[in-house]
Amino acid sequence: MSAAPDHPVELQYAPSGPFSAEERAAVYRAIQTRRDVRRGFLPERIPEPVLWRMLEAAHHAPSVGLMQPWNFLLVTGPAQKARIKAIFERANAEAIAMFPPERRKAYAALKLEGIMQAPMGICVTCDASRAGAVALGATHMAGMAEFSTVCAIQNLWLAGRAEGVGVGWVSILDEEALKEVLGIPAQLRVVAYLCAGMVEQTMATPELEQRGWRQRLPLEQLVYRDRWGEPA
Amino acid sequence: MSAAPDHPVELQYAPSGPFSAEERAAVYRAIQTRRDVRRGFLPERIPEPVLWRMLEAAHHAPSVGLMQPWNFLLVTGPAQKARIKAIFERANAEAIAMFPPERRKAYAALKLEGIMQAPMGICVTCDASRAGAVALGATHMAGMAEFSTVCAIQNLWLAGRAEGVGVGWVSILDEEALKEVLGIPAQLRVVAYLCAGMVEQTMATPELEQRGWRQRLPLEQLVYRDRWGEPA
Repeated sequence: MSAAPDHPVELQYAPSGPFSAEERAAVYRAIQTRRDVRRGFLPERIPEPVLWRMLEAAHHAPSVGLMQPWNFLLVTGPAQKARIKAIFERANAEAIAMFPPERRKAYAALKLEGIMQAPMGICVTCDASRAGAVALGATHMAGMAEFSTVCAIQNLWLAGRAEGVGVGWVSILDEEALKEVLGIPAQLRVVAYLCAGMVEQTMATPELEQRGWRQRLPLEQLVYRDRWGEPA
Repeated sequence: MSAAPDHPVELQYAPSGPFSAEERAAVYRAIQTRRDVRRGFLPERIPEPVLWRMLEAAHHAPSVGLMQPWNFLLVTGPAQKARIKAIFERANAEAIAMFPPERRKAYAALKLEGIMQAPMGICVTCDASRAGAVALGATHMAGMAEFSTVCAIQNLWLAGRAEGVGVGWVSILDEEALKEVLGIPAQLRVVAYLCAGMVEQTMATPELEQRGWRQRLPLEQLVYRDRWGEPA
């Protein structure tokens, strides 16, 4: 924590008007064609410059009180990946049993991770104490440090799409087991374990939608004006 | 919840190679020039097509098990905004008192919201039960539905940057008071209250950085390889 100056600061501004039509289209293309990638990773490594551009994009996420609570643990060792795959297998067996019997066959048929096939795992952690015991903006709403970390993940995901790198979020994991395998300090949270690798093609629409697990909801039903339930 | 078909589905793929250099630059420009906007909102309304493109971008976020747990409550009524501003004022007075005495003057000098000046507030909520009692991918890691909602917020934020719409996240709020003012059902979580409006300029770098509250951390210190603490 650096000392905030008591004297007034001359703030530096930059223009922030709309992008050109071509630039806007590129941003929307990244947003709309980004997929949760679980298959089709090419075996080649992500080139280092590409990887660091993605990490820089993550690091430019907003964070509450400029806390920057994130770390990125790159997992490339086959032994580490195999341990994490085993953690997934155990958790997924538990998960199947939680669904109603009539959904279990459909659940079991889904491919929900690409841990071994992806050349790289990226474990993204959150240290909510990074800015000290009390952090600006994190005094009232629970989870703000974790939410900042998720903004970083979404930035990385979109940067990956623009770079031809597929990214998939594996959430069916035992967090404590994962922390032990990776040596992550007990007081930190693991927010995500991502699988990442170059891809040539991904799903045209979300795989869960193609498989009939769930459909996209109509946006207009999700938007209200001034009070819950009032149509926009 | 729709029934998943038991027969095999022919999955539809789309090419997903790298964007052109110009497209990539546009994506990185959005990521790197996006700011947490608290001042400089123009009084004009966000044009409806722009607003809906931003909401569509949010709705294209990844969500655990395709849950799409988000709702967007657009706040434009002056009376509603004034009530929310009062909730901020109370919470912020509490927040100041939580900081060490030597930081309070600097904290009190910061502008941390633009609730009244922004033409629109966007309250983003999360319904973790949207996909039923048990949701694919949300069985093990806590907070996955909220994390999906944050991905939607980051998409909206980046789309806003491309559209010339400034967005600021106000987190110094009492969640229960906010839910009461907006009529949000008790079992839902408010993930964010955003201020949004057209802007011509925003901060060249984060305002907290310019004011010396905290500095950007060196990225390379935040990245490890295969085990916590091992340099990448």
